[in-house]
Amino acid sequence: MSAPIFNRIALIGLGLIGSSIARGVRACGAATEIVGTARSTATRGRVVELGILDQVFDTPGEAVKGADLVVICVPVRTTSAIAEAIASDLAPGAIVTDVGSVKQSVIRDVEPHIPDGCVFVGGHPVAGTEFSGPDAGFAELFYDRWCILTPSEKSTPDAVKKLSAFWQALGSNVETMAPDHHDLVLAITSHIPHLIAYNIVGTVADLETDTRSEVIQYSASGFRDFTRIAASDPTMWRDIFLANRDAVLEMLGRFSEDLSTLQRAIRRGEGEKLFELFDRTRNIRRNIIEAGQETAEADFGRGHTISSGED
Amino acid sequence: MSAPIFNRIALIGLGLIGSSIARGVRACGAATEIVGTARSTATRGRVVELGILDQVFDTPGEAVKGADLVVICVPVRTTSAIAEAIASDLAPGAIVTDVGSVKQSVIRDVEPHIPDGCVFVGGHPVAGTEFSGPDAGFAELFYDRWCILTPSEKSTPDAVKKLSAFWQALGSNVETMAPDHHDLVLAITSHIPHLIAYNIVGTVADLETDTRSEVIQYSASGFRDFTRIAASDPTMWRDIFLANRDAVLEMLGRFSEDLSTLQRAIRRGEGEKLFELFDRTRNIRRNIIEAGQETAEADFGRGHTISSGED
Repeated sequence: MSAPIFNRIALIGLGLIGSSIARGVRACGAATEIVGTARSTATRGRVVELGILDQVFDTPGEAVKGADLVVICVPVRTTSAIAEAIASDLAPGAIVTDVGSVKQSVIRDVEPHIPDGCVFVGGHPVAGTEFSGPDAGFAELFYDRWCILTPSEKSTPDAVKKLSAFWQALGSNVETMAPDHHDLVLAITSHIPHLIAYNIVGTVADLETDTRSEVIQYSASGFRDFTRIAASDPTMWRDIFLANRDAVLEMLGRFSEDLSTLQRAIRRGEGEKLFELFDRTRNIRRNIIEAGQETAEADFGRGHTISSGED
Repeated sequence: MSAPIFNRIALIGLGLIGSSIARGVRACGAATEIVGTARSTATRGRVVELGILDQVFDTPGEAVKGADLVVICVPVRTTSAIAEAIASDLAPGAIVTDVGSVKQSVIRDVEPHIPDGCVFVGGHPVAGTEFSGPDAGFAELFYDRWCILTPSEKSTPDAVKKLSAFWQALGSNVETMAPDHHDLVLAITSHIPHLIAYNIVGTVADLETDTRSEVIQYSASGFRDFTRIAASDPTMWRDIFLANRDAVLEMLGRFSEDLSTLQRAIRRGEGEKLFELFDRTRNIRRNIIEAGQETAEADFGRGHTISSGED
């Protein structure tokens, strides 16, 4: 247990991320009191049942009263509406942050609502699973994962420092990054991979019925990995693509150009060209393993254990 | 242990697949004697060290002498050269099979070399990892995975029956399929996913140096799954794309059309269209889990255990 960094943390949104923060904060003691709210009655009721918050409120305004940290955990395009809804109820000096996968548009839309004396620091815990909702969360979700903070000109160094300590208490490695650079890097590491996964699963969904059922039967050969990615929350991802449109379209353009080159090499039977590309991509994998973001251990798509976060 | 189905099995090629068959056969007792060969001196030496074969020969011709089952485990486009090399040394009545991910071209190139009295049955164990070489193999690789047999007009029912029993002894679920249908289904379940994974990893490899290192740092957000697929053996995959060109180009065309539609929806800010696609792909995932090809259990990219094959 760490010493409490905040007295009272308010979580707006209690899905996979919000409920994982709640569990993590309780496990590590980073805040004395954990309160929050969720849009749907069903989610609020379930969170009460789960007992992972000290108090569940019906509205964002009620939830943020007296909180010195507010974490907005909703789909990216809902963030500014939440900021507007809580503005008049924020305690003086409160720090407001979010967990969205896009940062430029969030900062642009949220900061105008933040009252003087409060401060907004954009945040993005680079962690998740394909599951959604309060039952999907777990305390170790952020353990040994990156959390990127994207301070704006209005973010105070003190707020950034406290928020960094908070995410570190949850087990994350914290980095700060310029918002536009964050959006570009995430476009290629996260947004385009998700878009492609959704796309190929969509292509399969359009196949003739008998072929489609065989595709499902033989999915172990590669397709299965894409379906896992493409099972992520559709609202969250719709918002991400719309909010990070420019960076996504830029990276998608590069991807499509490269795919045309590959397509032509296959059509022309250019074996050496194919080999060269396939060989060179192995180095990227090696770098990722060296960077500690993956183990080299084989994963055969079954028999997984949930990491305890202690490994 | 099952009763031996073959007296002497000869494995031509001792990489991930060949060495896994050797280990699996020894574990389940499907053949009395296991012999084989590999192209490189280093691999042959390593296999002797590992002690997973009863005898290692220097050439394919020597290896197949006296064998009643020959399994060719080499990249697809080398298969016919092996068939030619072993033809005059095959024992009367020997069954010859392969493990390639493309079947039409293999049958077309291999069958002319098979002497009268012997029989070729194309086979494809739908199993693998991103690792290569004799050290990467393990006995349980085929356990609870599909093995697709693609008999041609020349394949005898008796040979198909014995080969089915052999793969079942290794733990596989065996199905037979027409060669052209196999190639189409595998194009979308396996070949296109690999091509796309290679492509996006290649796009990243071409990024400016500083962005690239950040992409590696934040790879946990989706990209990492693609690098695993793109770390597969480059020679094997070059051969697959060249050998299954027509089906791959057909499916790639569909994929690209769909991707253009998505791109346009993002450019135009059509949120409903995006949501609809992202939502509908979840069903495919559900079907895969129901088909037993994956567990619903969360996988956080670390803390994996190697399946014992007993689960």
